[in-house]
Amino acid sequence: MERIIIDMDEVIADPMGEMINWYKEHYGLDIDYTKMTSGSWVKGFPEQHQQLVRERLMSPGFFRNLPVMPDSTEVLGELNKVYEVFIVSAATEFPNSLKDKLDWLLQHFPFFTWRQLVLCGDKRMISGDHMIDDHPRNLVHFPGRKYLYHSPHNITVTDYQRLHNWKEAASVFL
Amino acid sequence: MERIIIDMDEVIADPMGEMINWYKEHYGLDIDYTKMTSGSWVKGFPEQHQQLVRERLMSPGFFRNLPVMPDSTEVLGELNKVYEVFIVSAATEFPNSLKDKLDWLLQHFPFFTWRQLVLCGDKRMISGDHMIDDHPRNLVHFPGRKYLYHSPHNITVTDYQRLHNWKEAASVFL
Repeated sequence: MERIIIDMDEVIADPMGEMINWYKEHYGLDIDYTKMTSGSWVKGFPEQHQQLVRERLMSPGFFRNLPVMPDSTEVLGELNKVYEVFIVSAATEFPNSLKDKLDWLLQHFPFFTWRQLVLCGDKRMISGDHMIDDHPRNLVHFPGRKYLYHSPHNITVTDYQRLHNWKEAASVFL
Repeated sequence: MERIIIDMDEVIADPMGEMINWYKEHYGLDIDYTKMTSGSWVKGFPEQHQQLVRERLMSPGFFRNLPVMPDSTEVLGELNKVYEVFIVSAATEFPNSLKDKLDWLLQHFPFFTWRQLVLCGDKRMISGDHMIDDHPRNLVHFPGRKYLYHSPHNITVTDYQRLHNWKEAASVFL
């Protein structure tokens, strides 16, 4: 069984979308998507509010209540039958996110077990046959095939096969 | 720089020692070390109290207040200068342990950063040049050199080079 490594944030969970909705509701200012292309979507928020955004990312509960990316539950359920699937999230930068991420995953993807989640800081020690991630910095060290999951912050990256959504991923892997 | 993967529980942290001290103080019954050799130190506790031991393992704070294994801080501080070190702990079975383990590590090993901790369920996707672990089930899939850290539950295992303590590990790696 081939092993597939799948990222969490901006790939199966949507913290950026949740943050943008919350921000628009509370502050009503525009998000500048062109400023995200340095690799961090936080840079798309007005400068005077980026610290506020970072604090909200660090707060208990933020990662517990995130929207699920469209079609990810259905497609990962199918992948889980024919691949060895691990969800690998760079999360130790956010200590309060750790239990939230485990609880969120087991709620929305009930076919996974706690054995299939990896919470780390750096992904360079992760091995497998395929990796799906929205950050080039996570893909670069991976020894297997690499797929960039489409996100506003990575639109200028051309080094990897791009997956625009989970329906496209299904057509590649299933 | 070679990468070394180091386990947490029974290798740099001492949950078994802490649990035994607590148990003797509260119940005063003997621990049967010979029953641990199935691979689980919980089996060394009298059968009628094993559930209680498991519940204490699951409780918030248990992994935050563990003793540090002798000489591990000094030796890991030296290893961290000449190896790429990652601490990899099978922890997702214990949701309340996740933040506790991060906080514990950064308190007692202040030369590490959050980038060097990996919290997982299964270690089969971890790659590196060396792995030190007390459980054969974690070593078996590892692609590099494997070292069994000595523990009462693994005394019958003969398949791996055994490290009896951190002084011996220092003589092997430094």
